[in-house]
Amino acid sequence: MFSGLSFLGSRRAAPGGQVFHAQQPATGTAFEEPFHSASAEDVDTAAELAHGAFGPFSRLPGKIRAGFLTAIAEEIEALGQILITRASGETALPEARIKGETARTCGQLRLFAGMLTDGSWVDARIDHADPARQPLAKPDTRSMLRPIGPVVVFGASNFPMAYSTAGGDTASALAAGCPVIVKAHPAHPGTAEMVAGAVLAAAARTGMPDGVFSMLYDAGHEVGQALVIHPRVKAVGFTGSRSGGRALMDLAAARPEPIPVFAEMSSVNPVFLLPGALAERGEKIAAGLAASVTMGVGQFCTNPGLVIVDRASDTAAFREELTKFISAAAPGVMLTAGICRNYALGRGRLGALPGVTKLGAAPEAGGGNHGSPAVYAVDAARVLASDAYTEEIFGPSTLLITADGPAEMLALAESLEGQLTATVHGTAADLAGAAELLTMLEQRAGRLVCNGFPTGVEVNHSIVHGGPYPATSDGRSTSVGAGAILRFVRPVCWQDFPEEALPAELQEGNPLGIPRTVNGRRGGEGSAG
Amino acid sequence: MFSGLSFLGSRRAAPGGQVFHAQQPATGTAFEEPFHSASAEDVDTAAELAHGAFGPFSRLPGKIRAGFLTAIAEEIEALGQILITRASGETALPEARIKGETARTCGQLRLFAGMLTDGSWVDARIDHADPARQPLAKPDTRSMLRPIGPVVVFGASNFPMAYSTAGGDTASALAAGCPVIVKAHPAHPGTAEMVAGAVLAAAARTGMPDGVFSMLYDAGHEVGQALVIHPRVKAVGFTGSRSGGRALMDLAAARPEPIPVFAEMSSVNPVFLLPGALAERGEKIAAGLAASVTMGVGQFCTNPGLVIVDRASDTAAFREELTKFISAAAPGVMLTAGICRNYALGRGRLGALPGVTKLGAAPEAGGGNHGSPAVYAVDAARVLASDAYTEEIFGPSTLLITADGPAEMLALAESLEGQLTATVHGTAADLAGAAELLTMLEQRAGRLVCNGFPTGVEVNHSIVHGGPYPATSDGRSTSVGAGAILRFVRPVCWQDFPEEALPAELQEGNPLGIPRTVNGRRGGEGSAG
Repeated sequence: MFSGLSFLGSRRAAPGGQVFHAQQPATGTAFEEPFHSASAEDVDTAAELAHGAFGPFSRLPGKIRAGFLTAIAEEIEALGQILITRASGETALPEARIKGETARTCGQLRLFAGMLTDGSWVDARIDHADPARQPLAKPDTRSMLRPIGPVVVFGASNFPMAYSTAGGDTASALAAGCPVIVKAHPAHPGTAEMVAGAVLAAAARTGMPDGVFSMLYDAGHEVGQALVIHPRVKAVGFTGSRSGGRALMDLAAARPEPIPVFAEMSSVNPVFLLPGALAERGEKIAAGLAASVTMGVGQFCTNPGLVIVDRASDTAAFREELTKFISAAAPGVMLTAGICRNYALGRGRLGALPGVTKLGAAPEAGGGNHGSPAVYAVDAARVLASDAYTEEIFGPSTLLITADGPAEMLALAESLEGQLTATVHGTAADLAGAAELLTMLEQRAGRLVCNGFPTGVEVNHSIVHGGPYPATSDGRSTSVGAGAILRFVRPVCWQDFPEEALPAELQEGNPLGIPRTVNGRRGGEGSAG
Repeated sequence: MFSGLSFLGSRRAAPGGQVFHAQQPATGTAFEEPFHSASAEDVDTAAELAHGAFGPFSRLPGKIRAGFLTAIAEEIEALGQILITRASGETALPEARIKGETARTCGQLRLFAGMLTDGSWVDARIDHADPARQPLAKPDTRSMLRPIGPVVVFGASNFPMAYSTAGGDTASALAAGCPVIVKAHPAHPGTAEMVAGAVLAAAARTGMPDGVFSMLYDAGHEVGQALVIHPRVKAVGFTGSRSGGRALMDLAAARPEPIPVFAEMSSVNPVFLLPGALAERGEKIAAGLAASVTMGVGQFCTNPGLVIVDRASDTAAFREELTKFISAAAPGVMLTAGICRNYALGRGRLGALPGVTKLGAAPEAGGGNHGSPAVYAVDAARVLASDAYTEEIFGPSTLLITADGPAEMLALAESLEGQLTATVHGTAADLAGAAELLTMLEQRAGRLVCNGFPTGVEVNHSIVHGGPYPATSDGRSTSVGAGAILRFVRPVCWQDFPEEALPAELQEGNPLGIPRTVNGRRGGEGSAG
């Protein structure tokens, strides 16, 4: 059923590299099919194919690329239960979760297909000429967003579908007009092979140039590193650990031609509980928080790892309820043995820090790579004195931080590194009195959540899944939603070109009928003005 | 008249650092006023002031920031002739040029003021909630662009106004809501002091927070380096040499928290002459090219350093005309002794490369830091074999490259590094037959010019003054025009916030009346949907 070989465009790589196997996370039992790491030659072949495909692929009308993305979604859906079973087997994520994630993945592809069909995302701008201007005639200039070139995407351990082979990075790069080379995550190579097959079937069915998509296996780090430093590669998308992301950033920055790396890495997603909200619905907040902390065995980038309360409203009742809900949550099988080991190490490290008390934890399941939910507590003064308390622990644990009044809550917000999200629970009166805190959180995070929980990321036009370093490598980006396409494009300006040599988006007659910015007026129509 | 001291917000730094003097480029005579390099403590003070100003400055309504930018333009204009005389004296640029550049600088400030008043640049996006959605209720999400924090701007040698103290980088960063710290270029410190005084007078007059603007002097590189690695600094704007820009990029990438550097560095701005156009108007093209090469003693980032012709159309007449026009152009005083020395070295290096012939040159003026226009020629095969031929020579020289047919012209385009501009001269028939060349040039440059010349950069909504590395550090940006503001902002998303806690731009009632993207529809009105 699996060839275990990398895809070099429409071809398969030869076997020969280091062999590895997927494992069932709960038991450590290896799946039987061998997967073969790609060679240095394979990396070069995939990069040259992507380079060759870039010109023709980038010139395709948006509607044709939209057809390709829609076809990918259809091919993934056509895989049906066999894909769900395999992905669940390789990750220990429940089938219902994998089904939801697959629907999300196909929804993302269709969101970008819709944008391409609509066509207005290219930010077309036109400034008309004025030959009579003094002292110099004014030229005609027109600009739009164009793709930057081949993009390398790293599959993520924790989202085998939505952030992997045909996930958000791949979908947005292909939508932009950039060929993609995926470095498959070694924890779910079978899932990767199925999805890559779907992408390539869609490419063949819709007549895409060969090399528009490749997918390479690697048991270790060599293939990924070789891709990032390859001169044909022009950008990188990555979701994973802070150390891994930073290593890729450093490699890319040291290239003779530095390229952007969009790494989504590390976030502890602070949740600030203001007094009115706690008084009004403390138990409900405790239940919601516990559900958000333990959902998916805490293996989300948006998992709420810090909860900050004012000592004046930090009632015993709230602590008891939070502890009760977390302790009652079931342990779950984590994605990999390594992630489970790191979770245990992280909990041990946090629990041993000065001033930290363990409020409670679910019973250990004993083996089988289970992660048990846990909740700890500490005073804000400790956290303000050391960064050690706010390091990310990937898994279902959280730290309750008690601050002495609003000023210390604000100081705590200021002390935080960049975050994907920051959450505030407050009544109208709470929020009115927390303007400074809200401004500080805006400076620290990509998404602010009010009276909700950070897990669960909408895929739409206004979502931001990004944030200042180290949440991401470049806080000016989002890796989810319509804005993700902006990572892989650059503006290009045409000056004084005749109508027939301009892209359709910029032709005076506006054949695509898209809204454009004409002579500075946004949304202006493209008729001669 | 000059204090010679750095501005730390509204205060002046103490003297004490290394003293330097501006010089008259033609004579090397020093102006008498001493300027004092800033200290490490000054760097820290300016950075902390900028950090302190960021919160309040970023919260100001766009119209208030617009008033600040307009006031800067007014204060600069109020300086009048005294500024023109000094800037011309420090740079050897003619007064007419300085006047034009000052008008451009004030025009840029007003362009951004207009954008802030209009308000639509923030890319407001709204996706409404759907509590009835299954399986999960859909939240309300709203996003807009927000400033990233304090920005360091390096003054440029070749544009004492438009790319220096209150130039495009400063204007766009302030427009975004980011405080600015300028590192003045040591070649024109008096001009910098006058303009910085104008900025601070405008800040005082419009009630801006102290620290919104500082300006530091340095005879060497220490102050700039200290600013780039300062933890309070969140982005850098730079216009200058490739080695200088790359050094800043490397420093910024190695920080514990890496930050973006927008460096505009190096471009040879190839001009491709297609056969029909050469046959039709070869002499006119030669005259235009010579004017573009020699304008401003060639000291423009967009100076056309390479001219590529097909051997079949490379007539003796065209060569003679180009040579005649270039040889007849007057030598000019260059900006600094260092730039003049490097120009002579660059010409010497190019002239000595295998296969290069000197077609002609204006007579040497003999001393006085004059640069003499020159034109060289070489076969494309040589250029394809070595990068040495296409290195930037900052000054009024150009290299005519003869290619054997369209395929070699295309290969030459492909071999080029990233460029700010690429120009094509062609008839309608030429352009129709050059689709591949145009696509290749689009991949290599930020701005494509048809039947014109690359010098002269419009300041408008559709201009792109950027391009793939090494033209800029990040080809996804422009440093001129409305798009320059996008370098210093990031998207922030508010989820489920009540109306009164949202920024005005995102409130359901749309009090600013700006076009927004509502539920994916671009330009939609913000009324409840």
